[in-house]
Amino acid sequence: MAQIVDHEERRGAIIAAATELILSGGFGAATMRTIAARAGYANGALKYYFPGGKSEIIAAIFTNTLREIESMAGTQNTGNTSQDLRHYLRSWFPRSVEELPSGRLLIELWGHSLTDESLRELYSAHLAHWGAQIAAQIEAAHAVGAVLAAPPFEDMASEYISFTMGTAVMNLMFPDGSHLSDIEHYLDGVLLRLGTPDA
Amino acid sequence: MAQIVDHEERRGAIIAAATELILSGGFGAATMRTIAARAGYANGALKYYFPGGKSEIIAAIFTNTLREIESMAGTQNTGNTSQDLRHYLRSWFPRSVEELPSGRLLIELWGHSLTDESLRELYSAHLAHWGAQIAAQIEAAHAVGAVLAAPPFEDMASEYISFTMGTAVMNLMFPDGSHLSDIEHYLDGVLLRLGTPDA
Repeated sequence: MAQIVDHEERRGAIIAAATELILSGGFGAATMRTIAARAGYANGALKYYFPGGKSEIIAAIFTNTLREIESMAGTQNTGNTSQDLRHYLRSWFPRSVEELPSGRLLIELWGHSLTDESLRELYSAHLAHWGAQIAAQIEAAHAVGAVLAAPPFEDMASEYISFTMGTAVMNLMFPDGSHLSDIEHYLDGVLLRLGTPDA
Repeated sequence: MAQIVDHEERRGAIIAAATELILSGGFGAATMRTIAARAGYANGALKYYFPGGKSEIIAAIFTNTLREIESMAGTQNTGNTSQDLRHYLRSWFPRSVEELPSGRLLIELWGHSLTDESLRELYSAHLAHWGAQIAAQIEAAHAVGAVLAAPPFEDMASEYISFTMGTAVMNLMFPDGSHLSDIEHYLDGVLLRLGTPDA
């Protein structure tokens, strides 16, 4: 049992080292050699934990990043369903300048997805999963009368995901956080279109 | 005079060669050597036209791509101002699967901007310029009563640009073009929020 935990820790340390290297210097800065050095392992140990090499490490970073973004999304139950829906939609976005670096990682991963088919498939599956989750949340608000627009809500969910992606780029091009206010503007528009009666 | 035209042509040929290499294999595939080979020049000729090396070539690609996106945006004057505004906003987006590859180039350039400060500044300036143009177009529709929402329209323009960026990513992750319909959905929402009376 202790052996298994240790393996997971080591995998985690390798992923963390690769992530730091990519964040500070881009994909080119993360090689099997620099990742091993940063994590404090021999090159051979890296191959043991990631037999697929760098592309397996990158896929693990992608999965980690997407899980982190997903774990940020949270529901609340104040009794005001449209306020709760706004809270849920808002929770997918960075709230402060401190949260912007994860967008940086995402952009690097998008670039890599363009030339790595399996990474693209992994990401597309995540996007489809998120879209279904978001649509379900709007549907739930519709069921209790807090959303007046007619289903299906898949198009809205997909549009919403597009906007979150663009926001990640915009935030990194204007790292002073001045574009975080666009998010509020957009969410107000989404609620208006959904016709939430008590928005 | 003929000499100057020739120089411009050669610069163009080098930029085109580098763009093709990036589109087919990512940034790593475009080196000074492979760009020179593809364009049919000696390495020395490349240095003559681009003394700043690869980063100057990439900046030229960025400028070219941004100019192309901008040239796609077009106004029409049908007499129905809100229909004209929709046409203008729609014209910033790809219309078909054939137009999706330019988004690919954009994603590669974003990734590069993260580690290249001057590229980021070049891009931020373009974004600010586009934002002002789009806000001015909405303002013009407002002046003739076709937009009822109150100015300033800078936030809407900036939100709109975020969405166009996210769409480029979404379209590349779902290259069947299925996500082109999200664009129509979003534009309907923008016009609703602007309160265009004859939309």
